[in-house]
Amino acid sequence: MYDSAMAQVAQVTNGSSEFDRDTAVTLRDPGVPGVYDAELSAGWTILNAVNGGYLLALLGRALGDALPHPDPITVSAYYLTPSAPGPAVIRTETIRTGGTLSTGQASLLQYAEDGTEVERIRVLAAYGDLDALPGDVQTTALPPAIPAPQDCLGPSDGPAPAIPGSSDITDRLDIKLDPATVGWAVGAPSGKGEVRGWFGLADGRDADPLSLLLTVDALPPTAFELGLKGWTPTVELTVHIRCRPAPGLLRVSITTRNLAGGFLEEDAEVWDSAGRLVAQSRQLAKAPLTRG
Amino acid sequence: MYDSAMAQVAQVTNGSSEFDRDTAVTLRDPGVPGVYDAELSAGWTILNAVNGGYLLALLGRALGDALPHPDPITVSAYYLTPSAPGPAVIRTETIRTGGTLSTGQASLLQYAEDGTEVERIRVLAAYGDLDALPGDVQTTALPPAIPAPQDCLGPSDGPAPAIPGSSDITDRLDIKLDPATVGWAVGAPSGKGEVRGWFGLADGRDADPLSLLLTVDALPPTAFELGLKGWTPTVELTVHIRCRPAPGLLRVSITTRNLAGGFLEEDAEVWDSAGRLVAQSRQLAKAPLTRG
Repeated sequence: MYDSAMAQVAQVTNGSSEFDRDTAVTLRDPGVPGVYDAELSAGWTILNAVNGGYLLALLGRALGDALPHPDPITVSAYYLTPSAPGPAVIRTETIRTGGTLSTGQASLLQYAEDGTEVERIRVLAAYGDLDALPGDVQTTALPPAIPAPQDCLGPSDGPAPAIPGSSDITDRLDIKLDPATVGWAVGAPSGKGEVRGWFGLADGRDADPLSLLLTVDALPPTAFELGLKGWTPTVELTVHIRCRPAPGLLRVSITTRNLAGGFLEEDAEVWDSAGRLVAQSRQLAKAPLTRG
Repeated sequence: MYDSAMAQVAQVTNGSSEFDRDTAVTLRDPGVPGVYDAELSAGWTILNAVNGGYLLALLGRALGDALPHPDPITVSAYYLTPSAPGPAVIRTETIRTGGTLSTGQASLLQYAEDGTEVERIRVLAAYGDLDALPGDVQTTALPPAIPAPQDCLGPSDGPAPAIPGSSDITDRLDIKLDPATVGWAVGAPSGKGEVRGWFGLADGRDADPLSLLLTVDALPPTAFELGLKGWTPTVELTVHIRCRPAPGLLRVSITTRNLAGGFLEEDAEVWDSAGRLVAQSRQLAKAPLTRG
């Protein structure tokens, strides 16, 4: 039923979407493999900071070019300093190439006023070929129960989320949240560490392994439903891409089981329109300091 | 009730236990910070390979020495090539030092016959001070239900686990598995992706953040209960240390929700005797190729 809804959205080829334009990387010098220039777009900011999932997709695109395998299978990112819109460079290293998997490292850097490089994010990743994996599926995982998209809530459906600062990223995403998990937006957080919703890119670009790196970090943080407000900076985020996603909207659930000692983990599961679990992620984040 | 049982075990100070002896690292040259020599012990092998959690603890010890903060908060390891007992070197890099967290990188390398270094594992990690974290706990996670240790099964309690090859590590661990999760050992795997049990070090050394890096990768793989046999090589393993563990046995659960495309994730939770969730981990592993 959602496929027909999606079919009405003008399809943007993966090469010309906002997401692809804003995650483009350019090999700096054909004689120097693995070094890429990039421009961090102001269009993917949340709370005035560049979204960590968007940055991860950008790093993922560079690694996909540098490594012999095309698809991210597992990516682990350590966030060092906040990124700002503007020029950036990605330095990659091929650590190991193998038959099934290749392993690489990448750093995203920006420039200080004196021109020196400041590292923003460091990543380790294993890449493979999702189309070459065997077709076996033996799973006990079930997709989250979420009302149909028309019964879920987007930014225009209710009170503005109580997020201070600019959040340009909301214009680029088509997120519809399960009403049961948006109590935080009206001052009544559920106290449960779960947020669920539908995810698409606003211009209708279909999901692929790179955009899944964005998807896992795009919903409002579970901390909001736990009654905390404010910035929830990611320390570490690991994403496993388990399957190439089918066209159509994605279902995403993020959950937190343990908020303690000033940190919380946030687990994301992403399901495609064919009912496959396409991505799993976990991040460790610093808990916001302000009670809602 | 388990505290009294533990009190009967001769206490080994953390400095003289098998675990501490075998994870010792030595700064190679006082003039060259961050490079450590180590000896991979044959005492922590499983299926003739050196256990990945033991290796992670060794890397963790080197990083704890190299970085200004003492405790691993999050550690992400990419396993590149199988390690063998014998000499190794750990090369660390301090990426960023901050007030609450420091971030580092480490590589474990061994030597080829011609003396060249071969990289075994690469790690990114954020270190902090667990004793300096605020005491807030707002958790919905509950410890796994496991029968008392005397009602659980160790290596001497039944049919030998159907693991070919040497598994010297079993002599160094005090693992008692929930009988409901050891069907694989008698040819009747449950089909559920869960293994639960009690964990201690055989010589009675208490847990600390470093030994937790071993604990999360020490139980038989969930793949066995899913009816698969054989080697389940880790591609990536991330551990979050959430709290300093109290003395006494630990409760560990490992679960798999999704086995697909030749890979499975394995999530571990570790609980201490005080009922605190002390570690969470997730790994992506290659599924064994043999049906049980």
